[in-house]
Amino acid sequence: MSKENLIIQERLKNLRKAMKESGIDYYIMPTSDFHNSEYSADFFKVREYFCGFDGSNGTLIVSDDEAGMWTDGRYFIQAGNQMEGTGVKLYRMLEEGVPSIEEYLQMNMKKGQTLGFDGRVISTSVGERLERKLSDNEVSFKIDKDLADDVWTDRPALPCHDMYVLPDELCGLSFDEKLLQVRNKMKEYGSSMHLLSKLDDICWLTNLRGDDVECNPVALCYAVITMDSFTLFVQEKEVTDKVKSYCEERKITLRDYSELFSYISGMKLDGNILFDKRNTNFLTYKSLVKKAKEEGVSLVDKKDPTEALKACKNETELKNIREVYLRDSAKLTEFIYWVKKNAGKIPMTEYSAAMKLDSMRAELDGFIELSFPTISAYNANAAMAHYEATEDNCAEVKAEGMLLVDSGGTYMGGTTDVTRTMVVGEISDEIKRHYTATVCGMLRLAKARFLEGCTGKNVDILARSALWDMGIDYKHGTGHGIGYILNVHEGPQNIRWRFSQGQYEAPLLPGMIVSDEPGVYIEGSHGIRIENILEVVRGEANGYGQFLHFEHLTYAPIDLEGIDPAYMNSDDIKALNAYHAEVYKRVAPLIQDEDIKRWLKEATRAITIF
Amino acid sequence: MSKENLIIQERLKNLRKAMKESGIDYYIMPTSDFHNSEYSADFFKVREYFCGFDGSNGTLIVSDDEAGMWTDGRYFIQAGNQMEGTGVKLYRMLEEGVPSIEEYLQMNMKKGQTLGFDGRVISTSVGERLERKLSDNEVSFKIDKDLADDVWTDRPALPCHDMYVLPDELCGLSFDEKLLQVRNKMKEYGSSMHLLSKLDDICWLTNLRGDDVECNPVALCYAVITMDSFTLFVQEKEVTDKVKSYCEERKITLRDYSELFSYISGMKLDGNILFDKRNTNFLTYKSLVKKAKEEGVSLVDKKDPTEALKACKNETELKNIREVYLRDSAKLTEFIYWVKKNAGKIPMTEYSAAMKLDSMRAELDGFIELSFPTISAYNANAAMAHYEATEDNCAEVKAEGMLLVDSGGTYMGGTTDVTRTMVVGEISDEIKRHYTATVCGMLRLAKARFLEGCTGKNVDILARSALWDMGIDYKHGTGHGIGYILNVHEGPQNIRWRFSQGQYEAPLLPGMIVSDEPGVYIEGSHGIRIENILEVVRGEANGYGQFLHFEHLTYAPIDLEGIDPAYMNSDDIKALNAYHAEVYKRVAPLIQDEDIKRWLKEATRAITIF
Repeated sequence: MSKENLIIQERLKNLRKAMKESGIDYYIMPTSDFHNSEYSADFFKVREYFCGFDGSNGTLIVSDDEAGMWTDGRYFIQAGNQMEGTGVKLYRMLEEGVPSIEEYLQMNMKKGQTLGFDGRVISTSVGERLERKLSDNEVSFKIDKDLADDVWTDRPALPCHDMYVLPDELCGLSFDEKLLQVRNKMKEYGSSMHLLSKLDDICWLTNLRGDDVECNPVALCYAVITMDSFTLFVQEKEVTDKVKSYCEERKITLRDYSELFSYISGMKLDGNILFDKRNTNFLTYKSLVKKAKEEGVSLVDKKDPTEALKACKNETELKNIREVYLRDSAKLTEFIYWVKKNAGKIPMTEYSAAMKLDSMRAELDGFIELSFPTISAYNANAAMAHYEATEDNCAEVKAEGMLLVDSGGTYMGGTTDVTRTMVVGEISDEIKRHYTATVCGMLRLAKARFLEGCTGKNVDILARSALWDMGIDYKHGTGHGIGYILNVHEGPQNIRWRFSQGQYEAPLLPGMIVSDEPGVYIEGSHGIRIENILEVVRGEANGYGQFLHFEHLTYAPIDLEGIDPAYMNSDDIKALNAYHAEVYKRVAPLIQDEDIKRWLKEATRAITIF
Repeated sequence: MSKENLIIQERLKNLRKAMKESGIDYYIMPTSDFHNSEYSADFFKVREYFCGFDGSNGTLIVSDDEAGMWTDGRYFIQAGNQMEGTGVKLYRMLEEGVPSIEEYLQMNMKKGQTLGFDGRVISTSVGERLERKLSDNEVSFKIDKDLADDVWTDRPALPCHDMYVLPDELCGLSFDEKLLQVRNKMKEYGSSMHLLSKLDDICWLTNLRGDDVECNPVALCYAVITMDSFTLFVQEKEVTDKVKSYCEERKITLRDYSELFSYISGMKLDGNILFDKRNTNFLTYKSLVKKAKEEGVSLVDKKDPTEALKACKNETELKNIREVYLRDSAKLTEFIYWVKKNAGKIPMTEYSAAMKLDSMRAELDGFIELSFPTISAYNANAAMAHYEATEDNCAEVKAEGMLLVDSGGTYMGGTTDVTRTMVVGEISDEIKRHYTATVCGMLRLAKARFLEGCTGKNVDILARSALWDMGIDYKHGTGHGIGYILNVHEGPQNIRWRFSQGQYEAPLLPGMIVSDEPGVYIEGSHGIRIENILEVVRGEANGYGQFLHFEHLTYAPIDLEGIDPAYMNSDDIKALNAYHAEVYKRVAPLIQDEDIKRWLKEATRAITIF
């Protein structure tokens, strides 16, 4: 038994002691921050602290006589290794005979017992489901206690980094202009108070940014809006003098991040409370329910008005985005040149290639941070959905096969996301067929014309058809929205062929930007993904309605070494040639190096069928 | 003032007298039979009798001091003419300032007044909406009285034609086998009684057919299913000796069509009542509500299990359908030859051409009836959505432009539906572009491969994309299901890009057959529609799921005189050539005339791009 495992056992012992003191029989530790952010800071890694497993998905449940950890198929091996000797039992989610978390609690919890968790890291939907499923068990819930507070003595601090102000000229609309639009929606719903919990919504609305979530330029915060006040709850230490005076000028009242609940409980309301259940954690939700009851008003669960406003970029945002994507594309083009020139000739690993690209991006004017950790995956590694190369554990890039790189940056002017799969040596005819079909899919969707009212479900098949024709699919969506100097994943738009129940099928609207990223993943062999970002643009309006189409924002060459024109139809070939002509026209002027320019000319040459 | 109008006034006077006697202040007469069938027999033309307007959509409301008739934009002129001098006011639906039926009643009906209608010709959704909208008015409803019974002295009889039995060998499954499947569904829902109101569902289930609705081979009937009984409510006179002994052998209890309500009210129930609100008229619905209350059971509103069973054709049905579609296609091919050879040379009108085709179809073995009234529309007439050529009012077909013919038959072996637009003379380059795009759309959808789980919404864009690329749309769905020796329109599948709220987006499943009918309609100029019927077929199943694709059932030449290959991509051309090769291969052997065979060879020749 290793030393580490004794440590976990000790920690669990302390946790159980704290549970007893708080009268908690079962304690749940999921993987989330207070805002359901995509990445959780070290402060929130409670589950990891108490079981040793550090994968991105896991829920730990501890009772007096058992500790169990639920994770999905990606992590069965890793979790087994990391939890060895801790006494924590691994529950393999979705495997036959393995109870779900709710089933486990239903089977084990007895009448009169208490279930505890930090209600700020559990979503409302999960919290409500637990209440529903456990109603027959007649158990109590204790959701206002983070037991790690007491037990985790050397816990990292809550992320706390300086906030900053984006100039109105960069945002296109001032805070006041945006707030007016949100208040108009509140009037429409008859709301006297609107709670915003979603970090990127609040940052977009206030034109403020922060640095509290990895790769997302957001601050940990809440906002409460009434018809005559705007209160922002942030950690005092994050508020620089500039942010402070910006807020003062705009009548944004600043309160400490921890004061949300006391503030809400002190409010007087004469209209309903507008909130978005999807974005509100369970403890906050419960405090709203209580408040609404006290004040005799109703709760109105609607999509945050900010989400739709944020999704349709304004003209200033679009102008900046187009320019930033060109500069980002030029940098990526230089990187592609570097990879193709050097693979097999200099020492290169997945990790070192990613570092190279990251450092190249960091040179660009206005660079803030990566928009997500760069994915760099060689050959068979690229077929793994959540592969992550690290310095110590990564493949060498040789002069054979392909390197897939999915990357992006956040700049003063926009957030980018792009994937290219580069051919660095021999590839089989089968791989060429897959590569060509992936490229055709990306281009077919990109040149779609469609009527306003269409959603991602209407157009998804355009990206998949070349693959479906071969009996191949990719098990992920085709496209997601992207923030403006914000999160690389944002809603409401979504390009996918299936929407699960409750998932919102948002129409594609002018000004939205959306990714277009088909792929092929053959286990043990190869992975291909080609991703461009598209802007939704207004076309002809006539008696049939308003036509829309896409325009590319990404302009980086697609590797012709992966293409076999025999697998394309004449429209596909036209589309590829037209795209490549634009890549050269737009990107070449941004490239200094004459060698790269010459190479780009060749890399974007027109191809023919015969 | 014409004599006819005095007659209407007299009829309205009598109606008002009857209203007074029944204590009814407002009386509604819509356009429907008791089963919401696509076509209503003369017996049901009450609205026409009391106002003179005979269009396919209209609702008449009569009160003591006003009579108003609501219809849509297609019929404003016709209704105005037909109702002149009757005193009936025309309400132009959806025009600004024109109240809807509900708004009109809300504005006019006073507390304590009574609204009357025959609850058998109003759907449950409409009835419930009226109740909801008029709840503030505090009015009573009288829905069990058809006032026309008293007033319309020379009223045509309720349709009443001999029923007949389809042999089990023709149906693939016996009544008992089908009933077992329905009862299994009832068990799943915990139902002790299931009411079926939809005529084609009942006919499919019993393997019986009738002739009470125009173009639909169905009998007016209801069915009540329990775990140990099956009761069929039909007009006694329709039951031939054969039908009677068929029913006796299968323990189908026969009761008169009029006895449904008394039968229901006498039932003893120990489980819930399964019914489908979409198919149940308001009076029947109300009687179910009453019954459920009396028996202390619940009403379970679910899609009739029969609908899904009927939609996925069994192997016998499919075998017969494939064969019938080939014979029908061969007949249509001969007709196309006749039109193209004779247009401009012999006297030909839209009507006479339709008659020619109808008589040709009637020659085929097993012909029962047309599956809908043949649409034959020349040039600009083809751009009108609901154009109907009559003997007295139809265009001459000259040697210029195009003739659109949409037609089909019901045979012992299947029900067909097909549209071809034939070029009979010079057409402009613009028309060729539209024609070519329509053909490309039909072919692109037909060659789609997709994963099980896809619905019509996923694939619709394939039929529209060639048109959308030109800024053109067609304002109708792309495809509907088709019955087996039954109605030409059946659900649940539907290919369309938008589903309105409440419309069911059914997955496409193996064995379904569905139309594929894109079109272009340019007002005052031309109309084009090309319609094939497709079968959904199982393809490869692998780790990605079950792939599906379509196979053509229709094999009739597409007019190459309408095609300009310059507007097609290489895949479109391949698809057209492959389709035409199959047309010749499959249809030529069914054609006797050597001239037509030679012409067909030429008409299905391969075309090239350059």
